[in-house]
Amino acid sequence: MARPRLSAKTYIDGILAGNRVILSQAITLIESNLDTDNILAQEVLQAIISHTGKSLRIGITGVPGVGKSTFIESFGGLFTHQNKKIAVLAIDPTSQISGGSIMGDKTRMENLSIDKNAYIRPTPAGNSLGGVARKTRETMLLCEAAGFEIILVETVGVGQSEIAVKQMTDFFLLLMLAGAGDELQGVKRGIMEVADALVITKSDGENQKHAYRAKIEYENALHLFPSKENKWIPPVLTCAAIQNQGMNEVLEMIEKYVIHTKNNNFFYQQRENQNLYWLHQNIKDVFEERFYQHINIKKSLKEYENNVKNGHIPPWQAAKDLWKIFENNFD
Amino acid sequence: MARPRLSAKTYIDGILAGNRVILSQAITLIESNLDTDNILAQEVLQAIISHTGKSLRIGITGVPGVGKSTFIESFGGLFTHQNKKIAVLAIDPTSQISGGSIMGDKTRMENLSIDKNAYIRPTPAGNSLGGVARKTRETMLLCEAAGFEIILVETVGVGQSEIAVKQMTDFFLLLMLAGAGDELQGVKRGIMEVADALVITKSDGENQKHAYRAKIEYENALHLFPSKENKWIPPVLTCAAIQNQGMNEVLEMIEKYVIHTKNNNFFYQQRENQNLYWLHQNIKDVFEERFYQHINIKKSLKEYENNVKNGHIPPWQAAKDLWKIFENNFD
Repeated sequence: MARPRLSAKTYIDGILAGNRVILSQAITLIESNLDTDNILAQEVLQAIISHTGKSLRIGITGVPGVGKSTFIESFGGLFTHQNKKIAVLAIDPTSQISGGSIMGDKTRMENLSIDKNAYIRPTPAGNSLGGVARKTRETMLLCEAAGFEIILVETVGVGQSEIAVKQMTDFFLLLMLAGAGDELQGVKRGIMEVADALVITKSDGENQKHAYRAKIEYENALHLFPSKENKWIPPVLTCAAIQNQGMNEVLEMIEKYVIHTKNNNFFYQQRENQNLYWLHQNIKDVFEERFYQHINIKKSLKEYENNVKNGHIPPWQAAKDLWKIFENNFD
Repeated sequence: MARPRLSAKTYIDGILAGNRVILSQAITLIESNLDTDNILAQEVLQAIISHTGKSLRIGITGVPGVGKSTFIESFGGLFTHQNKKIAVLAIDPTSQISGGSIMGDKTRMENLSIDKNAYIRPTPAGNSLGGVARKTRETMLLCEAAGFEIILVETVGVGQSEIAVKQMTDFFLLLMLAGAGDELQGVKRGIMEVADALVITKSDGENQKHAYRAKIEYENALHLFPSKENKWIPPVLTCAAIQNQGMNEVLEMIEKYVIHTKNNNFFYQQRENQNLYWLHQNIKDVFEERFYQHINIKKSLKEYENNVKNGHIPPWQAAKDLWKIFENNFD
């Protein structure tokens, strides 16, 4: 169902002027699955691309319950109090299942959500993580063009979404709980290897000694990993976001990282490699869109799926047959 | 470089007769990247497909050092002593990097490697995990057609390879060490959720009490996960493979699982869904092969990649342009 849209020029001018109403409408445009909206969205993105890239992009991950919203509420305040503009985005692969989004409930960031320097946008809906991640990345670019200087991209520690966030941010922060039973925290070697820092949350009162012990343990663990290409040793910090304790230290640590990686050029190289990553992701997306939306594939897929399911046709044969259908009816 | 190949009929007859020399040659054919070999391999697979599916497929994962080879040596012996034929395959995503494969060194399974009822095939080489996983699955089918009743597919607890193994086996076993520092063991929530059982290895001597404590902890942890569709509660067992302790219990537990899931039909449903998974994987593979091997894409890709890297062209634009090149020169 087509809804009324603004002209490309109105979106572009509005975004570049930092108009939030128009920014929000442009993000809705990006999130749309309508072909006509896609064409318009591409035009807008194309026009604003030269105004992007100037923000610091920070990814934040951690399992549910680690206190991501509380952390972002407190951490984001550090920027807004300096009069810096911050946008908070999210990728939640479980939102399709749970029907909600990690940040659907803005009241979880009470202060930030009414802060004039902050802009909070919940995770877009989507059928595939690839699609959701791409839309979040494009939303990030719109926010940069609208003058946001800090972009936080939040994700929950599940599946592939962390890779997507790692691939769109400059700094990747892993939040952890102390003493909550590591086996349930989903402490993943893979994620620890790509994190630029670990921050142990809720380090207050009785919990402080657990947090400190965990800090030592993780520091020891991190030393066992091979050293990183960027020559940065991921530090382990503790914080208590509700009391605003340890938050400045996190900010200073990230500032140190930025100076360090800009000096050794890694900061820029990483962005270049991320562009490359998204190129190949986009190629995959274009293919899947064309393939699965193709009229003849739509007609034949179900039958092939059934034949593959019950073993009448081996998967590789069905894939080849379907490809032939696709190829012969290329439009 | 083309090597001499047998005729499709010779491969097919040899495999169905359980001829191991021909089985090995057929697997080499599957692992080949030559187009002519691929066509021959497809013909062989097509012919043997109706003779597959009769084995019990068991996936085994765990971090390096957990004792996978020792476990398989001891566990595999339980079958061969019953005069059952067992094939041991592997997927190792790190083998490209390390230059070796988890089972390249057959001497790690001294008895099994000379057992007439066992067949050990190391992980195939490949550029992408997708390709390696597909070849392993097809190898599994050849082994089934050759009369192997048990297929073990081993993988190392890294990245996506566990998903591939989960998607090609009936039972997925996670091996774990006790007291080795969970944060480094890569205990992943995702993997614990898909495992059908946890087995704590090296439970002998002094280590037995650690193993028992870990068993209780993991049992508690597993109870916190939502109950599975197959109504199977993954048990936690301990074993000491070198002393052949606890191995029979593992086998009995798996037999119980098979009866349970065949009774509630999950066993068959899972295989059907796995077929579907491989259909869509194969579709992706066909696309990537056609796309990246396309003469005009090969010519243009590097330039687009450079322009995307340095930000001259946004990734989505390059993806669309490349798609147009592909589409217009469809052959």
